[in-house]
Amino acid sequence: MRFASDNTSGAAPEIMAAVLQANEGYDRSYGADAAMDRVTALVREIFEAPDAVIHLVATGTAANALAIATHCQPWGAVFCHTHAHIAEDECNAPEFYSGAKLVLVPGAAGKMTPDSLSAALATTGEGGVHGVQRGMLSLTNVTEAGTVYAPAEITALTRLAKAHDLPCHLDGARFANALVATAATPAEMTWKAGIDVLSLGGTKNGCFGVEGVVLFDPAKSWELELRRKRGGHLFSKHRYLSTQMEAYLTDGLWLRLAAQANTMGQRLSQGLTAKGATVPDAPANMLFPEWPMGTHDRLEAAGAHFYRYPAPTGRERARLVTSWSTTEADVDRFLAAF
Amino acid sequence: MRFASDNTSGAAPEIMAAVLQANEGYDRSYGADAAMDRVTALVREIFEAPDAVIHLVATGTAANALAIATHCQPWGAVFCHTHAHIAEDECNAPEFYSGAKLVLVPGAAGKMTPDSLSAALATTGEGGVHGVQRGMLSLTNVTEAGTVYAPAEITALTRLAKAHDLPCHLDGARFANALVATAATPAEMTWKAGIDVLSLGGTKNGCFGVEGVVLFDPAKSWELELRRKRGGHLFSKHRYLSTQMEAYLTDGLWLRLAAQANTMGQRLSQGLTAKGATVPDAPANMLFPEWPMGTHDRLEAAGAHFYRYPAPTGRERARLVTSWSTTEADVDRFLAAF
Amino acid sequence: MRFASDNTSGAAPEIMAAVLQANEGYDRSYGADAAMDRVTALVREIFEAPDAVIHLVATGTAANALAIATHCQPWGAVFCHTHAHIAEDECNAPEFYSGAKLVLVPGAAGKMTPDSLSAALATTGEGGVHGVQRGMLSLTNVTEAGTVYAPAEITALTRLAKAHDLPCHLDGARFANALVATAATPAEMTWKAGIDVLSLGGTKNGCFGVEGVVLFDPAKSWELELRRKRGGHLFSKHRYLSTQMEAYLTDGLWLRLAAQANTMGQRLSQGLTAKGATVPDAPANMLFPEWPMGTHDRLEAAGAHFYRYPAPTGRERARLVTSWSTTEADVDRFLAAF
Amino acid sequence: MRFASDNTSGAAPEIMAAVLQANEGYDRSYGADAAMDRVTALVREIFEAPDAVIHLVATGTAANALAIATHCQPWGAVFCHTHAHIAEDECNAPEFYSGAKLVLVPGAAGKMTPDSLSAALATTGEGGVHGVQRGMLSLTNVTEAGTVYAPAEITALTRLAKAHDLPCHLDGARFANALVATAATPAEMTWKAGIDVLSLGGTKNGCFGVEGVVLFDPAKSWELELRRKRGGHLFSKHRYLSTQMEAYLTDGLWLRLAAQANTMGQRLSQGLTAKGATVPDAPANMLFPEWPMGTHDRLEAAGAHFYRYPAPTGRERARLVTSWSTTEADVDRFLAAF
Repeated sequence: MRFASDNTSGAAPEIMAAVLQANEGYDRSYGADAAMDRVTALVREIFEAPDAVIHLVATGTAANALAIATHCQPWGAVFCHTHAHIAEDECNAPEFYSGAKLVLVPGAAGKMTPDSLSAALATTGEGGVHGVQRGMLSLTNVTEAGTVYAPAEITALTRLAKAHDLPCHLDGARFANALVATAATPAEMTWKAGIDVLSLGGTKNGCFGVEGVVLFDPAKSWELELRRKRGGHLFSKHRYLSTQMEAYLTDGLWLRLAAQANTMGQRLSQGLTAKGATVPDAPANMLFPEWPMGTHDRLEAAGAHFYRYPAPTGRERARLVTSWSTTEADVDRFLAAF
Repeated sequence: MRFASDNTSGAAPEIMAAVLQANEGYDRSYGADAAMDRVTALVREIFEAPDAVIHLVATGTAANALAIATHCQPWGAVFCHTHAHIAEDECNAPEFYSGAKLVLVPGAAGKMTPDSLSAALATTGEGGVHGVQRGMLSLTNVTEAGTVYAPAEITALTRLAKAHDLPCHLDGARFANALVATAATPAEMTWKAGIDVLSLGGTKNGCFGVEGVVLFDPAKSWELELRRKRGGHLFSKHRYLSTQMEAYLTDGLWLRLAAQANTMGQRLSQGLTAKGATVPDAPANMLFPEWPMGTHDRLEAAGAHFYRYPAPTGRERARLVTSWSTTEADVDRFLAAF
Repeated sequence: MRFASDNTSGAAPEIMAAVLQANEGYDRSYGADAAMDRVTALVREIFEAPDAVIHLVATGTAANALAIATHCQPWGAVFCHTHAHIAEDECNAPEFYSGAKLVLVPGAAGKMTPDSLSAALATTGEGGVHGVQRGMLSLTNVTEAGTVYAPAEITALTRLAKAHDLPCHLDGARFANALVATAATPAEMTWKAGIDVLSLGGTKNGCFGVEGVVLFDPAKSWELELRRKRGGHLFSKHRYLSTQMEAYLTDGLWLRLAAQANTMGQRLSQGLTAKGATVPDAPANMLFPEWPMGTHDRLEAAGAHFYRYPAPTGRERARLVTSWSTTEADVDRFLAAF
Repeated sequence: MRFASDNTSGAAPEIMAAVLQANEGYDRSYGADAAMDRVTALVREIFEAPDAVIHLVATGTAANALAIATHCQPWGAVFCHTHAHIAEDECNAPEFYSGAKLVLVPGAAGKMTPDSLSAALATTGEGGVHGVQRGMLSLTNVTEAGTVYAPAEITALTRLAKAHDLPCHLDGARFANALVATAATPAEMTWKAGIDVLSLGGTKNGCFGVEGVVLFDPAKSWELELRRKRGGHLFSKHRYLSTQMEAYLTDGLWLRLAAQANTMGQRLSQGLTAKGATVPDAPANMLFPEWPMGTHDRLEAAGAHFYRYPAPTGRERARLVTSWSTTEADVDRFLAAF
């Protein structure tokens, strides 16, 4: 009953097996390992993007901060949702790496809308040299509220940004979960929808520590390498990043792991709804159910782990996250305790 | 015959076994895992420092940059050797994190001397508000030239720094190799010699990616945590860092691994000397031998890997690094090819 | 009829006369000039603060950015009004100098309220190491909306900040105008109201280019000097800053200049109200009147200068700023054109 | 007998007269003033560069730091002389604004040579992603040692830099003095010699506080404007910068002021030499004479101001700087005291 976060899970057996195998013998360091070439080939094939490049780091914050710094000047504004991970959970890392300012775009259920983004675009960068300039757009999918953007929704937002020639970033810490939830292809969710750079999450979905920065236009690749090194994010024994990502992307493992997480998320959602909880729309693996007072304590007493969230008076709200390793038994025990 | 760098080796079996075991089940994230408490306890015991704290990151550059940023103001000077890793091989990461300026202190064989450090201290920070202020001292052991500082040599240098109230950092990417080479205890090499903060290397010596920042005065611990997060270096699945470090420090594994590397380094050194190469003093696991023209090609043709270095006219020079996984057979094949 | 900004005015005759006199002969550079000692003495007397120190720069953005960088860590949050000058009109200078994040606190008429500040304080810095930490409070008086905080209002806000041990900054680009509008003493508006550091404006109010950073606790003085130099804001011929500030603060010149600006502002406000315009509360020298469509064009055709602002449908809004050099004739001509 | 620095002088009468005149009435702020257009036209004519742009700031450190930040990436190296002002006297401002690393190029008498620059270029940027990349060249003329580069010497150095596609900066805090000393034209000393960006000094040579950043390629003009604002260096009452620079460049005033300073410097040099002092080559307005022990005290007792410098055992050395306001009487009194 560990629903606090998908990062409390371990690594999937296929990932660990690949790492163990890659541990044998010697390999070139700093990204010149053989597995890295295979990762690039996999990304190009899976994203139907023959020029794409990917750079690997170990944390999602590093991936986001490097992606942003490479696409936004220090006097630029990054348009992101009010509750984006880059705004609330990265302790100024995006600002540290880029110098840019985050401009918060509101929207219900963790999603900005064409209207709210248009409003932000209209009122930013109009002050000449005195204010920040419009810099870039950063979306998150799965959102921090557990909701999901469909590709058409992403396109509607990137189109507004591109009217100002802004590059568009997607924070895909839970990218595989978003793909599974929408049945979109990786290409449909990214470059076909106007995304220029993707933070491709691996850690939460069955790796132990690897994230990719995928550049659909390779022109910024060398700059990103330099920024990665300057940030201290270039691994010497790089094969341990490459191998995780290679195994993750091979034979659809990443989608199978995400499908398990999402299926368990939906089982949990339906079970809670059936038992009277209010569960806002959450088609992937993160739920924010609302339930009667006293439920938190009862569930924790039964051994459940989750985060408590602010709720309307007289109610309680929780954040529940399922993962690749959540089992039906985990869910059913939780529902029984509820 | 892989002597290009100790980071072309894999991870030691004991490390991988511990990681595999830690992979089971769920654990708390972001450094709240159980193994991290044990790592702290190990560090305090091994360094005879009951108040020390350690923070884990995945790269040596991150460890150095965070250690420096936490101890030097943006208007400060970091005194380091002309060829220090922080000066030549980290693409401005120390400056990025700290804002400080590196002041290069010369010295033969990779080591600054009391005289060269005194001279640098005397001519820096004397310009009032116009120039950088004296900030901190950063030493490296094993040095980039493969030489080693004895504790008394470190003490002689930190004493000069402390006369100006400067904190002192030791870049210990090969700290275990330095301990083995000098027979010093961890405490003798660090806080007893005036070191305030240590970059404790794991990666080169049998881990796959973990380095520690050891603070002997815990007062800066929270600042270091915030800087680590802001730099994108806080692992969500942190147990994969803790477990490596725990296994590394348990039952003297780290010293056994370093002893193997050093023993192989000395076997190589003695063998080369016996066969006519010139091998400057290098008591640990990194050698810079000089040999006749044509040797590079012959060795590479035989399958040897190493770095070519600038040499006097008519001679060749190489960098050879042994590691925990180097075998007598590796060394002897190299000597035979030579 | 130049009402676009108080920075379109020249310097007051008393200021220029003092500068001309100071131009004779030689003087020590970089702040060691004799006038600077007199400036410090004046500040201490006027603010009834015997330990206060003041550092001079040439722009308000520099004063604010240095004041903030000296009081807020790079992982901190600066609580400021949504439309604060530091948030909207300084092109990321505060972030550049400090690394901090600005957290926007809403509030009608340019003023945050205890409620809105409490809400911001409650939701920031609660995420442990993952989010920014509470850093400092920054208020503006006169506000960007032309309104004014009374000392008691400032106290109510700084008290909330100090409950979290946060230092408090006042952006006083129009500090003298705020004093005149409230009849408060400099001490009552600052340290007696919980302000730790003040940006003391001179440029808009009759100088040609000088602002002070007043530290009521001198402990941060040396850090501020180093940051000023590192920012390129330390004048070599510093006497030209000191002399302006000395003349400005001598014999109440600064308050007389501000009184003229405010009196003209009120004359304008009353005149416009009498003639049917809607003029929101604005007790100092900056008005945001609303009037019928077509007025903008008519006034500009008559030679008036001002900024056009967004207005409700069917109405127009302007920003009008009076200054020390605004005359009754200027105001009356404007009213006649209206 | 004020020879401590040319920044202890006041402003020339022509400069003050122009400022007084410009003080009348209202003017547009933030660089939109009428005088600024005239400054641009003057620069284009004087430098024979019809596309050049100039941006004004108040300090030389600001000019240098902005020029460098606009031409060098944060992972780049700025090649400058070991004793360059940007390296020794700006408290990390160049690094703060640019993020770059200064690579120190040695050379006698304050001048780098083609050999020393070639050596620095050859050993920097060869480490792939691990080290800083070659970024730009920064020269100083008049140098910090009082010597002067002839245009051909500058060309020899910029040619080496341009072989690596590096932009070239000239720190011209004493640019007019260098022109007078070499009889070169502004164009010959800058773009015709491979200089892309110039810090054009005004303050030391008769202004009270204005320096220009001259871009011979205007493509970076908007970026420089944004960096200037973000650094807090955009003056609101900008006319006080423009007017100084306009008067300075009008009718050759800047060259007449520099000629006076240089003539007095040479009178001093010849007088000291005639009286037995050793005066190293110094064709402009800054001398570093060497003389017998006891001279310092005697001169100071007579009322002379200068800086004491390190000297060989048994000798004393001073820095003497003449300025536009130095008179023959000043020099002759000093020589008499000597």
